[in-house]
Amino acid sequence: QAPAAVEPASIPESAIAIARQLQQKALTDPTSYALVESLTTRVGPRLPGTPGDRAAVAWAVQAMKDIGLKNVRTEEVPVVGWLRGGEKAEVLAPAPQPLVVTALGYSAATPPGGITAEIVQFDSFADLRAALPGSLEGKIAFISGRTVRTQDGAGYGAAVVARSRGPAEAAKKGAVGLIIRSIGTESHRLAHTGMVSIEGGLPPLPAAAVSNPDADQLERLLKLGPVRIRLELTPTLPGQVTSHNVIGEIPGREAPEEIVLLGAHLDSWDLGTGAIDDGAGVGIVMGAAKLIGELPQKPRRTLRIVLFAAEEVGLVGAKAYAEAHKAELANHVVGTEADFGAGPVYRFATFFSPEAKAAGEAIQAALAPIGVLPGPNNASGGPDMGPLRRLGVPVVSLAQDGSDYFDVHHTPDDTLDKVDPKKLAQSTAAFATFGWLAAEGRGSFRPTPLQPE
Amino acid sequence: QAPAAVEPASIPESAIAIARQLQQKALTDPTSYALVESLTTRVGPRLPGTPGDRAAVAWAVQAMKDIGLKNVRTEEVPVVGWLRGGEKAEVLAPAPQPLVVTALGYSAATPPGGITAEIVQFDSFADLRAALPGSLEGKIAFISGRTVRTQDGAGYGAAVVARSRGPAEAAKKGAVGLIIRSIGTESHRLAHTGMVSIEGGLPPLPAAAVSNPDADQLERLLKLGPVRIRLELTPTLPGQVTSHNVIGEIPGREAPEEIVLLGAHLDSWDLGTGAIDDGAGVGIVMGAAKLIGELPQKPRRTLRIVLFAAEEVGLVGAKAYAEAHKAELANHVVGTEADFGAGPVYRFATFFSPEAKAAGEAIQAALAPIGVLPGPNNASGGPDMGPLRRLGVPVVSLAQDGSDYFDVHHTPDDTLDKVDPKKLAQSTAAFATFGWLAAEGRGSFRPTPLQPE
Ligand SMILES: [Zn+2]
Ligand SMILES: [Zn+2]
Ligand SMILES: [Zn+2]
Ligand SMILES: [Zn+2]
Repeated sequence: QAPAAVEPASIPESAIAIARQLQQKALTDPTSYALVESLTTRVGPRLPGTPGDRAAVAWAVQAMKDIGLKNVRTEEVPVVGWLRGGEKAEVLAPAPQPLVVTALGYSAATPPGGITAEIVQFDSFADLRAALPGSLEGKIAFISGRTVRTQDGAGYGAAVVARSRGPAEAAKKGAVGLIIRSIGTESHRLAHTGMVSIEGGLPPLPAAAVSNPDADQLERLLKLGPVRIRLELTPTLPGQVTSHNVIGEIPGREAPEEIVLLGAHLDSWDLGTGAIDDGAGVGIVMGAAKLIGELPQKPRRTLRIVLFAAEEVGLVGAKAYAEAHKAELANHVVGTEADFGAGPVYRFATFFSPEAKAAGEAIQAALAPIGVLPGPNNASGGPDMGPLRRLGVPVVSLAQDGSDYFDVHHTPDDTLDKVDPKKLAQSTAAFATFGWLAAEGRGSFRPTPLQPE
Repeated sequence: QAPAAVEPASIPESAIAIARQLQQKALTDPTSYALVESLTTRVGPRLPGTPGDRAAVAWAVQAMKDIGLKNVRTEEVPVVGWLRGGEKAEVLAPAPQPLVVTALGYSAATPPGGITAEIVQFDSFADLRAALPGSLEGKIAFISGRTVRTQDGAGYGAAVVARSRGPAEAAKKGAVGLIIRSIGTESHRLAHTGMVSIEGGLPPLPAAAVSNPDADQLERLLKLGPVRIRLELTPTLPGQVTSHNVIGEIPGREAPEEIVLLGAHLDSWDLGTGAIDDGAGVGIVMGAAKLIGELPQKPRRTLRIVLFAAEEVGLVGAKAYAEAHKAELANHVVGTEADFGAGPVYRFATFFSPEAKAAGEAIQAALAPIGVLPGPNNASGGPDMGPLRRLGVPVVSLAQDGSDYFDVHHTPDDTLDKVDPKKLAQSTAAFATFGWLAAEGRGSFRPTPLQPE
């Protein structure tokens, strides 16, 4: 395998002029929104291993063909299945009342009839970790820390450890269950689901989130004295299920083996219809690809659209993609994922070699007319770029404004009405601009030498 | 029974100066909010006939004593019981997905396993009423009309007929069930419950509301072709249950037989904790009474606080009160209810005799410093004033800004976090001002002669 290019990346002036037209067209093109509407309406929720997930894969194959992509194909992704089942919780004492609760992904089931126990509050995951082993014998741990609203998701990043590692930690202390305040900023009686880390094995206890208002109520009740709750979760483990990455391309006119990757994830949590997470991303990258495909001249390099499977349950599709494509990773010129809602994009960050700085600046300058600021050179590229980035693939982040993202993310409220068509179109314009310029460019964004894993 | 007074109402100048101080005190007094917090936390949901309702009555008796009210007592109110049970709905075709649904109050139950049928959309109740008898045989009617956001509740007033009369109308056309778009303005996956009219008997079919985003989704799916859903509701009818109006007073120093009534309703729907409907009203009138009771001199007339039972299921407590107190209605000088959320009050409307116009203007002038505008002379007084108003009792409306009220009203989202303490305190200041001035005043607000029913 030869490196994709040797000279540092550059963006030809001729491409910039075309980018400007592309951008203007994207701002009024209805494709992205129409795709989000179609996916969330005709398919709806699409948790890996469900009929919705299979319908989504079929939908994506057809949609890629409809927008004119070539080499449309699917690649199998084996996934550890988990299905929600029923979920119910209530305060038994001191003041009986129902709680709005949802199981965390990979939560264990309770026995029939649920578990009944006193709750013990911890302000944060760190406080739970500091508890003595065995100190929660027979209790349900309750992590009450809040998610701070931020534009870039930093608040979520700080809070999410309660979800990912809380269950294992609570079990270590002897707890019979865990409830956490939803990892989200919403003020509605809708609880926030999401993945529990299964790196150390499946969670050993039932684990659920309560909505923010319910968490407030528990805090108030705890001030009155001991609080006893009943928690019933009946998720099931169907064993290994199969999902699929879906791939389509605009083959490059000069260097078809060189790949510029625009990704999003096709799966969604089961509570909503996955409109902002990540129907929007699907709409954005597909809408961008359609517009690039309609240009009078195809780009020099191949633009590859990847709709990843099973992102929600551990970046499973992204890891499978990195493994399946390891022979051509040196030809992955650059990649990015749209997975932070429906926009708008406000910042362009890179993870490039110092030599590619000028090319990065040229791309940002082309994005500036639609309100995109320059960002740092430590971009993550989005969750599904992680495995590729670790293997040396350069990435960029077209950072979307996430101020309201965690009002909706992973809750039943993730529905089409939360997508603003104008903001979505701006994101599409940004991804189209980047995709076009990177695919029309020459040279390498890659650190020299390739960073070892 | 002698009429309460013969000369037209007047407000003494000395009372106005005290009202100003009372108002200022109310704006920073924590009592109203503390009462809402206590009721919604220690009691929570309180549907008539449930343990929560009984706990609320006990809570109210104690709270009235705690704020210094006298003659605290309860009066029995028999209510037709209805208990929610389970509620579940899903789209079966063309795209299987869950629906967020809640049973309407007094809905019939479905058979076990639910009903499965195609839905037929009507834009409004009027369109359903125009359908031919028998035309919905075996179908579920779906009324999709939206609730318009307004400050004064006019949007709700226009939409609510779909809920109150939709079930009977759908049954007439042969439908096996009814679903309606939630009678509310919220954009969340939370459905809005509320009373179905039982004047013509209990609803003959299962009737439920879907959330606004779910209604949107059904409309989109219907554009693709026939939509088949499953609806399962398992409410039960426990027969006649007993609730209680709770009454407390500040006895008048000169004319204790003359009554100025400040009301709110103690019951709530079961989905939330009844914070804005009507915990806020309870807090407002109790907070106002506490402040008036703390004045150096008690008011001339008796200030009576009535926390009505079973407002939500047909003004049952208000009707019982009117019946139980018919002998003293001529002594009810004026009344009002706080039942439109947590404020602020923006308008003062009256339903007075023309001769009492000047007194109404004096009260409004005293309210103006806290932002209360003059209103018309057709006030309803609030839902629970209806039966008294029809029997000739003068009423006023301290109209609260309801622009956001129907984002929360009758949904699981009706929780304490939706109450803004500052706006609540402004409402308390307004009710305290009115209560004090009316109780300190002289003469009659009453139309002369008494309007016949
Ligand atoms: Zn995502
Ligand atoms: Zn996600
Ligand atoms: Zn009410
Ligand atoms: Zn109500």
